[in-house]
Amino acid sequence: MRLKLSLNTATARKQWTLAQIIDGCARHDIRGISPWRDQVAQMTLSKAQKAIAANSLTVTGLCRGGFFTAPDWRDDNRRAIEEAATLGARCLVLVVGGLPSGSKDIEKSRSEVYEGIAEILPEARKAGVPLAIEPLHPMQAAERACINTLEQALDICEELDEADTSAQCALGVALDVYHVWWDPKLEAQVKRAGKRILAYHLCDWLVPTRDLFNDRGMMGDGVIDLPKIRRWVEGAGYAGFDEVEIFSELDWWKRDPDEVLETCKERHLRCT
Amino acid sequence: MRLKLSLNTATARKQWTLAQIIDGCARHDIRGISPWRDQVAQMTLSKAQKAIAANSLTVTGLCRGGFFTAPDWRDDNRRAIEEAATLGARCLVLVVGGLPSGSKDIEKSRSEVYEGIAEILPEARKAGVPLAIEPLHPMQAAERACINTLEQALDICEELDEADTSAQCALGVALDVYHVWWDPKLEAQVKRAGKRILAYHLCDWLVPTRDLFNDRGMMGDGVIDLPKIRRWVEGAGYAGFDEVEIFSELDWWKRDPDEVLETCKERHLRCT
Repeated sequence: MRLKLSLNTATARKQWTLAQIIDGCARHDIRGISPWRDQVAQMTLSKAQKAIAANSLTVTGLCRGGFFTAPDWRDDNRRAIEEAATLGARCLVLVVGGLPSGSKDIEKSRSEVYEGIAEILPEARKAGVPLAIEPLHPMQAAERACINTLEQALDICEELDEADTSAQCALGVALDVYHVWWDPKLEAQVKRAGKRILAYHLCDWLVPTRDLFNDRGMMGDGVIDLPKIRRWVEGAGYAGFDEVEIFSELDWWKRDPDEVLETCKERHLRCT
Repeated sequence: MRLKLSLNTATARKQWTLAQIIDGCARHDIRGISPWRDQVAQMTLSKAQKAIAANSLTVTGLCRGGFFTAPDWRDDNRRAIEEAATLGARCLVLVVGGLPSGSKDIEKSRSEVYEGIAEILPEARKAGVPLAIEPLHPMQAAERACINTLEQALDICEELDEADTSAQCALGVALDVYHVWWDPKLEAQVKRAGKRILAYHLCDWLVPTRDLFNDRGMMGDGVIDLPKIRRWVEGAGYAGFDEVEIFSELDWWKRDPDEVLETCKERHLRCT
């Protein structure tokens, strides 16, 4: 029995608006969606909320909060929490930010990220929006996120959300196979994560990978042992959606999005 | 007082033969060299050995042994050990290999790497050639090396070379800032490494990085805090050479190699 499928809207963002993606999910019987905030803003929050509700889609996450190293991080994260609450998102995904322009001080960034999460966590908790730190691949450490391993993310979760023993953590992780598949400590850290896994993202690592950001593969086309990682994640107690998120300038963003969604469904069943 | 400079011959490989690089090092008063085996083979081992000795260059490493996931790994590593011994190399750098074509089983690769190192270690020890495992950046896990963090490399060193308490370890690491700069556990692991640091490689991480393999930066042009890592490495007791290794299809491989060597020297003093 497979977990239900969710579509991260990045997967068809070049071809479709959010309204079209919501229709597409309904048409292809994909029951979850994880929208990006720029797309939500373009559609307007209230229209997005209505269309998602009208199609009974589960919002498996809102992408994204974070970027705690940017000047406007406080306001931006407050807005993100409100939007996530409005959409009933199961979590707000945090892409935490990397090195500000001119900085070589990754430790300073990491400490700003820690302080930033500490500061927004009470607001997120009050709004009923769990925060999901997404550890990003080390190759994206400078430009997008200085949290780069699951171990590092869990250290922060446990320090800031120590007493949380509820079924639903206020602070957890979004686990994306693309970012963590290489990690020699992955199995142990997934076990450690347990109920802190708030979202599980799927795609594949292509060989060769031609771009550091936008050359992700469709499940089955790369070298990640997806069934193995799924077993670990489900073994840790995760029972949410399987969310497909593919940034693919050279391939999937160029295809007919109906074909993309059909392929996601088929590969989800066959290759994960 | 700076550690002495060594030139990894990859840095000028597109412009110069090994003979020309040896001359270049002598002309620019760079006192160490770390050649690649294909260049040595092209020049012939005996001629390379003679030219390096005639110029009194220290061979800070031979690149490379490893690729334990390839069919001919035994013979290839035996030859590499012999060549390193002939050249008087301070270590044989091991790029351990990634996933064989068609494989998605990184754990199997890791176990083959472990067994491979275990098997060649006695021969390397007998030949007086220390083996230096080079943890490679996680973005190169599939294609070049499934050892991706210093912690993972040191775990192997300590398991296979437990009893080694000599001044010179038989099994250690080649620490390249490019591969490890992002690691949140770097400071602690460098401390742990101590005398197992057999080589220290310099370059820089460019923003943006346009290629996963051949877009390394010259020291000072990227975002790595090189003085900080140097302090950690020297604090761990490392007193070898600073070896510059720059793979740069888009920039340094296109320049006049005399300019490249002068720039390495100047940046070594000013930016590391």
